[in-house]
Amino acid sequence: MKNYILQDENSVYFECGYSCDNVIYLSLSGDNYFITDGRYEIEANLLAKNCEVIISNDLIRVARKILNKSKIKKLTFDPNDFTYLTYQKLTTNLKINFIQKPFFSKQKRIIKNDNEIKYLKKAMELGRTGFKNFSNYIAKDGLDKSEKYLFFKAKEFMSFQGIYDLSFDPIVAINENSAKPHALPTAQRLQKNDLLLVDAGLKYKRYCSDRTCTSSASKNITFKREQLFSKKTEQKVYDIVLKAQEKAITKARSGMKASQIDKLARDVIEKAGYGKYFVHSTGHGVGLDIHEYPNINSRNNIILEDNMVFTVEPGIYLSKKFGVRIEDTIVMKNGKGEVL
Amino acid sequence: MKNYILQDENSVYFECGYSCDNVIYLSLSGDNYFITDGRYEIEANLLAKNCEVIISNDLIRVARKILNKSKIKKLTFDPNDFTYLTYQKLTTNLKINFIQKPFFSKQKRIIKNDNEIKYLKKAMELGRTGFKNFSNYIAKDGLDKSEKYLFFKAKEFMSFQGIYDLSFDPIVAINENSAKPHALPTAQRLQKNDLLLVDAGLKYKRYCSDRTCTSSASKNITFKREQLFSKKTEQKVYDIVLKAQEKAITKARSGMKASQIDKLARDVIEKAGYGKYFVHSTGHGVGLDIHEYPNINSRNNIILEDNMVFTVEPGIYLSKKFGVRIEDTIVMKNGKGEVL
Repeated sequence: MKNYILQDENSVYFECGYSCDNVIYLSLSGDNYFITDGRYEIEANLLAKNCEVIISNDLIRVARKILNKSKIKKLTFDPNDFTYLTYQKLTTNLKINFIQKPFFSKQKRIIKNDNEIKYLKKAMELGRTGFKNFSNYIAKDGLDKSEKYLFFKAKEFMSFQGIYDLSFDPIVAINENSAKPHALPTAQRLQKNDLLLVDAGLKYKRYCSDRTCTSSASKNITFKREQLFSKKTEQKVYDIVLKAQEKAITKARSGMKASQIDKLARDVIEKAGYGKYFVHSTGHGVGLDIHEYPNINSRNNIILEDNMVFTVEPGIYLSKKFGVRIEDTIVMKNGKGEVL
Repeated sequence: MKNYILQDENSVYFECGYSCDNVIYLSLSGDNYFITDGRYEIEANLLAKNCEVIISNDLIRVARKILNKSKIKKLTFDPNDFTYLTYQKLTTNLKINFIQKPFFSKQKRIIKNDNEIKYLKKAMELGRTGFKNFSNYIAKDGLDKSEKYLFFKAKEFMSFQGIYDLSFDPIVAINENSAKPHALPTAQRLQKNDLLLVDAGLKYKRYCSDRTCTSSASKNITFKREQLFSKKTEQKVYDIVLKAQEKAITKARSGMKASQIDKLARDVIEKAGYGKYFVHSTGHGVGLDIHEYPNINSRNNIILEDNMVFTVEPGIYLSKKFGVRIEDTIVMKNGKGEVL
């Protein structure tokens, strides 16, 4: 792609190693422009690589001026990345053909370089430590606390008390609330032997971690994969989901289609008779955004390659009873899947 | 306005008393439709008033179907509220004229009803309590803590440990960092006699509070308006900003132009010789969004009316030295401004 325009913060960061919440980035035959306002002047000049930093109160006017001066005829943009108003202001009376390419930046980012994998690995390691600190807290003080309060404490531990940004607001869900794949925390209080689902991640140098643990609450609670539930159905469902997740991870190979990874996990759950309760896809890419490419679902036939990073997170959701999801993030390395 | 379409969460909430992060709302000659996905079915049916709830995996397809069936010719939309992609999917081959009206929902919300004012008042009261709890913490344990950690603690106290959502990420800035109107927290540690600026708010029943305090750090720190700074320039600048803020609040009258309120504050600062260091407008409306109408700046000649709610927040920013901002939120009541 010779000429393109970006606004999305992570997409711009990927291009030049710096970003902010008010930027237009232009790449025109290899000449790159980082257009932002005065608040970001010092940092942009210091940190944005391989581009000319231009400071203005009217980013769109500057972008139009550069585009007008250039002799380009076509400019690629992501129609998800611009509001209708911005698109209009940019394009009106401009003799350039704007070519739509949804998510082209995510497409560029699908294979991670070694540095990105290093950051993602570090994010995942920190994330696991955050989970461990959170389980230590629950073991000591978490019983009888509400989901809402535990949600607050999850943010405390996953951010290491504010040192790291979170990848997303954690999910902290007890019993029947865990049956909703995107549960919001309620006033319900955690009791001994409750099933507790926690989905959380943090960012290290802007790269996201993502992990889900389902556990049995007690004074000895851990977020390890071995779990003993007091209720038989919970144990049964947990063991099926764990088997599905482990199978998808250990059998994943570069050269497979994404849909084959999905099938590895889904087959285990279907054979156990819970197929219709696995209501979402098996995983998604992770990087600067918490949801990147490749999508790991039954319809995506993209071929997996080394250095792709994605989650493996099968789940079974029994409405009004409970849900189990187990999630790790893996990288394809030397042809195999490796938990980061 | 007879026919309009909305996506923005707060705009939709204002229409029907319920909202979620995946919705298209249509109002067609008084017939209203709340289109969302299955995750929100139960709550939408329970809480969304005066509208038909429609559940679908493809909100745009449903919206187009309703629009096609209707006999309307014109539909108002906010071009900030739709991505270019969504706009295209909605409008392609549809024989309806889409009329752009930027921020028309905010315009509808400019005068608050009594219930909204009640919620805003409660939000502000809770916000002040949050500030007080935060200052008590700083008095006891805050000295020698970094801005980053104090930022984390500000979120803890302003959210009442996770009970309330925040209106925005707080600003916690020490000395030279407070000279940046939108400072990000650093590793700098708070010392006795430092100048500390905190800008924070929370949401009560979705309505935002907004307040800024500038204080002198010590074991007796408070966020009250009376402050004793150890450095003379700081005291001088603080007193000017406080005078400007108090003047704008006490002299504000319904029937004035917004620009006159701005002038009340700006004149005090200009006469004291600091005019060029007051780099932003005097205030903004507050409601479901943290930034609503009316804007209180030198160019806005809208006439203020009873039941408008807005901030009064003059500031002086001395680059690389320090900044002072003092902010309260007021409602126009019986012709006068009243701190909420």
